[in-house]
This record gives sequence, C-alpha cells and structure tokens, in this order.
Amino acid sequence: MNEKKPPPEEPGKKPGPNRRDFLRRGLTVGAGLTFAGTGGARGEQLGIPEWSHELGSGVTTPAYGVPSMYEKNVVRKWLPWFQVARESSVGFAPLQHLSGSITPNGLFFERHHAGVPGIDPDRHRLVLHGMVDRPLVFTVEDIKRFPSVSVVHFIECAGNTAMEWQSAQANSVQFSHGMVSSCEWTGVALKILLDEAGLRTQARWMLVESADSAAYARSIPLEKALDDAIIVYAQNGESLRPEQGYPLRLVLPGWEGSTNIKWLRRIEIGDRPWNTREETARYADLLEDGVSRQFTFIQEAKSVITSPCPEAPLTARGKHIINGLAWSGEGRIAGVDVSFDGGRSWRESNLHGPVIPKALTRFSLPWAWNGQEALLQSRARDETGYVQPTIGQLREARGVNSIYHNNMIMTWHVKPDGAVQNVQVD
Amino acid sequence: MNEKKPPPEEPGKKPGPNRRDFLRRGLTVGAGLTFAGTGGARGEQLGIPEWSHELGSGVTTPAYGVPSMYEKNVVRKWLPWFQVARESSVGFAPLQHLSGSITPNGLFFERHHAGVPGIDPDRHRLVLHGMVDRPLVFTVEDIKRFPSVSVVHFIECAGNTAMEWQSAQANSVQFSHGMVSSCEWTGVALKILLDEAGLRTQARWMLVESADSAAYARSIPLEKALDDAIIVYAQNGESLRPEQGYPLRLVLPGWEGSTNIKWLRRIEIGDRPWNTREETARYADLLEDGVSRQFTFIQEAKSVITSPCPEAPLTARGKHIINGLAWSGEGRIAGVDVSFDGGRSWRESNLHGPVIPKALTRFSLPWAWNGQEALLQSRARDETGYVQPTIGQLREARGVNSIYHNNMIMTWHVKPDGAVQNVQVD
Repeated sequence: MNEKKPPPEEPGKKPGPNRRDFLRRGLTVGAGLTFAGTGGARGEQLGIPEWSHELGSGVTTPAYGVPSMYEKNVVRKWLPWFQVARESSVGFAPLQHLSGSITPNGLFFERHHAGVPGIDPDRHRLVLHGMVDRPLVFTVEDIKRFPSVSVVHFIECAGNTAMEWQSAQANSVQFSHGMVSSCEWTGVALKILLDEAGLRTQARWMLVESADSAAYARSIPLEKALDDAIIVYAQNGESLRPEQGYPLRLVLPGWEGSTNIKWLRRIEIGDRPWNTREETARYADLLEDGVSRQFTFIQEAKSVITSPCPEAPLTARGKHIINGLAWSGEGRIAGVDVSFDGGRSWRESNLHGPVIPKALTRFSLPWAWNGQEALLQSRARDETGYVQPTIGQLREARGVNSIYHNNMIMTWHVKPDGAVQNVQVD
Repeated sequence: MNEKKPPPEEPGKKPGPNRRDFLRRGLTVGAGLTFAGTGGARGEQLGIPEWSHELGSGVTTPAYGVPSMYEKNVVRKWLPWFQVARESSVGFAPLQHLSGSITPNGLFFERHHAGVPGIDPDRHRLVLHGMVDRPLVFTVEDIKRFPSVSVVHFIECAGNTAMEWQSAQANSVQFSHGMVSSCEWTGVALKILLDEAGLRTQARWMLVESADSAAYARSIPLEKALDDAIIVYAQNGESLRPEQGYPLRLVLPGWEGSTNIKWLRRIEIGDRPWNTREETARYADLLEDGVSRQFTFIQEAKSVITSPCPEAPLTARGKHIINGLAWSGEGRIAGVDVSFDGGRSWRESNLHGPVIPKALTRFSLPWAWNGQEALLQSRARDETGYVQPTIGQLREARGVNSIYHNNMIMTWHVKPDGAVQNVQVD
C-alpha cells in the first residue's frame, strides 16, 4: 500500500469522502466482533476526525503533563455527609476507573486531620531522639543521601469499608473501597537511621509525629521499625505529593494507613507506647463487650470486584471479564476466589503477576453473562493461609460497634438489566 | 511523653519559644551526621513553621492531585535549537530528579511529529484489515472488554543520546538521556486481536498507523506482533495521557519508541514491509559506507548515571551514592559495572529489584569522594551476554553518520569542586 496523503485541506474545512472514508464504511459492515454493547455507534459514518488533519499541541505545553479532557470525571471524590470539614476528610480513589496495580499519584486516596500543609522542604527537619545514643536532626537532603530502596506497597486507611459494618451502605466501589491505593515508594530504610542514632538497650517503641497542625502522633513497636519501615520521599518516581506527606513520610508496609505518618517531623524512641489520642479515642476497635482493642495494626487480606460494580454496570450480554483488586498486609496474595451465587460456590480467578508482597494484586475471571441475576463476590487468600471473612464472621468476632478493619467479602447484586447494587449476604 | 498541645495562637502570630522550639535548639548542636553539604542551614533557629499551626487545604482541592509548588522545576524540557517546531519535537524527562524505576505520567518523555491530538475516545476507531479472514473495527470500549495484561516496560526513542555521536554535546543528563521512560502499561495482547481476525497464511508483516495528522506509519514483523505486542489504553493505572497516545497505543516492548505507534487507528496485515518514509528517510541507520540499515528495531543494553550528573553536582566531600538507570530491549539487565577512572577498572553495582525484562532497572554503588577528579562511567550487561559498548566501539562499527541507536557508555568528568561535565573517553 502506498502511504499517499490526501490533498491538503483548508483548516476547518469539512473533508469530503476519500479512500480512507470509504475503507471505514466498507469495514463497519464487516465488523465481526461478537462483543455487544458499544455497537450502537459503530454504524455511524465517521468521516475524518479533525485531529487527523490539524496540528496538535506542541511539547512542553504543559511541561508537567495532565490527563485528557475526556477523563475529567476520573477524580478523587469527597463525601460531604461522611465528614463535613474538608480539612479533616477523605478523597476516595476511583477504583472503578483504575487499571493494573499502580495508582497514579494524582488519584491516590487522601485522608487528613488538619488539611494538607504546604511544607517548604528546605525548612523541614526530621528529629530522631529519645532512647538513643546520638540524637539527630536530618534535612530532607540528608535523607536523600542515604542508600535508597524502591518498593511497591499498598496503603489502606483502617476506616476503608467502615460504612458497611451494620448494613450495605455505599452503593459505590469508590466510596466502599476507595481508601486503598498502591505505588512505588522510594526512601531510606528506617533501620539505617536508627543504627546511625544507636538504640539504647531498653528501647522498645517509637513515637512518630507529623508536622501539620494536627501534630498527629502514633506509637509503633520497634520490631516493625527495624523490619521493613521506610522513610520515603518519592512515589512513582517523583517527589511525594503534598497530600501524601511531602517532603517525608513513614511507610509501614501492610499496616493501617494512619500509622504511615505523613509530613514526618519527629521520631522519639521509648520503652512503652505513649497512648496518644489517636490510639485510644481513635484507631482502636470497640468490641461487643465494650472493651477497646488497641494496636491492631495489620490490614488483613481483602479484595473487591471493581468491574462490574455499581459505577460500572453491565451494558450488554455476552463475554465479560470480572476484574478486581486484592491485597494483604501479611504478605503475598495466594489466590482470589470468585462466586456468582453469593458464596455458595467458588471459582479460582487469575492473578496478574508479578504478585508483590503487601501490594495491590489484580485478579480477573472471564464470565459469559446472559442476563441472569447474580450475587458476585471475591474472596482473597494470602500466603499465611488467612482467608477473607464474610460480614457474618466479622460480626460474630467483633460485634457491630467497630469502625475500623472491615475486610468483609463484598457482594454485588447483578440485576437482569445489568445494574449492580451493594447488598449484604451473611 | 505527654501529647500536650501548645496553647492556641492567633493565626499569623509569630510563635514564641516553647518546649518544641527548645528541643530543636538543643538538637541542632547534637546532630551527629557525618554527611556534610546541607549543614549550612542546620544551625538556623527554625521556630515553628506556619504549616504546623495553621489548617492546610482540604481534600479534593484539586480532585486530581498535582505536585508541590516547591517541585515546579521538575518538568519535561524542550530544546529549541534541537527542533524548532514544538509540534515536531521532544519533551525530555528530568532523569536527574527521578527515583525508583517508574516514571510518573506527568514526566514521561514525549516525542511528536504533528503535535498532540485531542482525540475523543467515543469517536475513535481501530481498524484491523488486510490479509485477514475477518476485517474488524474496534471501539475503545471493545478493546477494554478483552482480557487485559499489565506489564512494566521502558520506551526509548531511537534518537536518545543522538547528539553524542561525534563529540560530547549535551552537558545535561535530561538532554543526553531523557528520551527514555518506564511505566506499567495495561492493555490487550495484540495476538488476541489477530486471532479474532484470523491471519492468512501469507501474512508476514503489519503496517501500524497513527490517527494524528502525521498519519505516522511503520512496518512491523508479525513475529513481534504475536510475541509480546500490546494494544494499551492505560499507563500507571489511569488512561493513557494524550501525549502518550490516548486513547490507544501500540507497545512493542524493547523496540525503538517510534514503532510504539501512538493514537493507533489502523493495523494492516501484509506479506512484506511497506517502506514508508519513516523507515527509509527516517529511523534507518546511515553507515560509514553510505548504506542505510533498515529495521534495526531493538534498543540494546544501555545505562547512565543520574546522580551525580551535570545537573546534580557533588556539593560536599564524604559519603555518596552513585545512582543510575539501566535497560535492555533484549530482556533483563544482568549487571551494571561502574568505573571511576574512565573505564580502566570496574566495580559491580547493586541492582534494585525486582529486575523486570525490558524495564528500567535502578543501580547504585556507595562512593567516598574526597575531592579527587574522576571519570565516572556505567556499563550495562543484559541476560543475553550483550555488553554496553564504548563510543569508540560504536564508531568503529557504524561510523559517525548515524543518528539513532547510540547506546554508548557515558562519561561524567567529576572535578575537584564537585562540578560534573559530559566528556568522551574512547
């Protein structure tokens, strides 16, 4: 075939029929896909679109790229009735629109207690003191000069899926599960800094504190600090975003998001927990007998189907791919089972590798849908043998007063018209 | 320690000394880091910064997140003298600012021939025709309904490092090597679409064509199409960026960027290459004897040190981490050697895992710098046994008329004052 160009046209002139136009017309008849759904538009006479005969925009406009204007609805969302003040609220990630296992930085969920501070990295300091031989103060540049590690990990707010303890509430995967995201973090292993400071023999815990006006503080066992904790300064290759803790954040892989202190300014080493407000009045699990469990740090295995979901109904009968995300704060996902009948029978899904410990793992399963009703569920298993529980099992263990750590199996009711609704199956 | 808050202050009032302020003063004296460099600021009396006693900005403002205002210089850059028209030019990625192995979408390098088109995904079609049993037309939604794969791969323009063939030119890693980037791509294996259409027995090549006004077209052997080619619609979890081919792009892992057709609108199957302008007048390698090599698709093993580099000089003597990126279009990086004496002796660096085939791999090596001059080099090896060549070896094989596929070992001359300059060592 010759690559002859059509004759040049005046800008904006409506193009007449030509060879390519004819080709398209011929092909629309022959289109042989058995997938239905979007075919309504297929018979249109498309012509040559304007972007095929006009110059586009030049490079570095803008020099920092942004999404297509056709993606303007793919954004984090705020739920005004859930938390009134925007400075102490949540921006939920649009899981229904995401692909793969990386969350782009612009869509990573956010949760704040006093808003997002505008920290000048040249003025920021990280203090390390308490039961150490040598108290230290680090600039951000100091931290960047240590050997670095880059690892993919999820972060999930302990309050993710909190609305679902008593009954099905959020008819939306963005609001039911959008407080989890995953990216490649780069920083320095906290162990290196602790070695530099020299831990005293009685050291057992650390207090980590944020530089925003919440002065948010949590007690963390040193065992975790010495295991896989990282002081990060970059996410997905670039500097941390302001809402993720710019310029420094503590990442505790697999532990509840609220312990992954953002805008980290201080680490104090001690021999016992501090019992701050955030680990007594908040982020503790109120059990049925009125006793409050403290320090339940690990985000256990969990999964959710993101397609179909309330925001992404089935629009046509025929072949579909069930698609979703699974994660475990204990390590690798071992498998994800999918049920079409509310948990009576299960089929094993395909995991999309590489399966990285404490990271989001995508799973999928083909499904021929012919208009039948279904109760879609996914059930994650991790490498420790832990299996994601039903809401009934969770209520039996912990009652219905809990707020945090709801990793229940989610149920999507698929209706004959393809609509999808959040329901609960015990 | 009690988590007592200081008494509330009037907004904007300059805070007086308090316990925390005192703590910082005490610690600045005790700071025991042996790293020098940024210490000039360390003795300052910092006080309590404004972000620690004022509310920050609320969630979903903006709903699609952007970098900190302090990162405004971390952008792609355009080199006006290199290509005058912004619509047919390059936005180089700022490798000197990047961490880890993922390039954030906003900084992924861009290269266009007729600017970035603003394609409406609902009106876009992908045509598959030629030597097939069933010609097909796909909407973007059709493509998204096939089983998906998500894989991390680099894309490098064949013209990356092109300026360096005859002498050291770009005193900048952004301009010498900034036409390579890496992200997680999601899409459908091209093999699935070809199976759907049914390849005729004489089919050997395909023509792939873009929907922008360049109607950019290249011939690709079907062997690659059936191996690991992907029609992608997402990068790093979200829809392709406009400058990366929104809504559909062909990704040919490890092959020169110009074959990874953006804004993909047409695949024609044939029995021989088409010899388009872009594979005869362009993207062919002019050898010393005047013969032009065509179809040199693979981006061979290559590496570059990104810290230090001309944009990131050494600012203090003492411990440093040499840090850089390596990649190979043939598969996995097996190792990266670092030289401090212009290639006379080599030390093996540390690879930061996971080492993914045809993806960027970060390497590092500690270095105690005491002000001595050095000729820093990195040399990548891949799993096929291929070793990154010197510029002398490249010139011997291909002369100095080439433009593309310059994967030479790069040399940074470190001077006694820490400045870094691009030089050539044969």
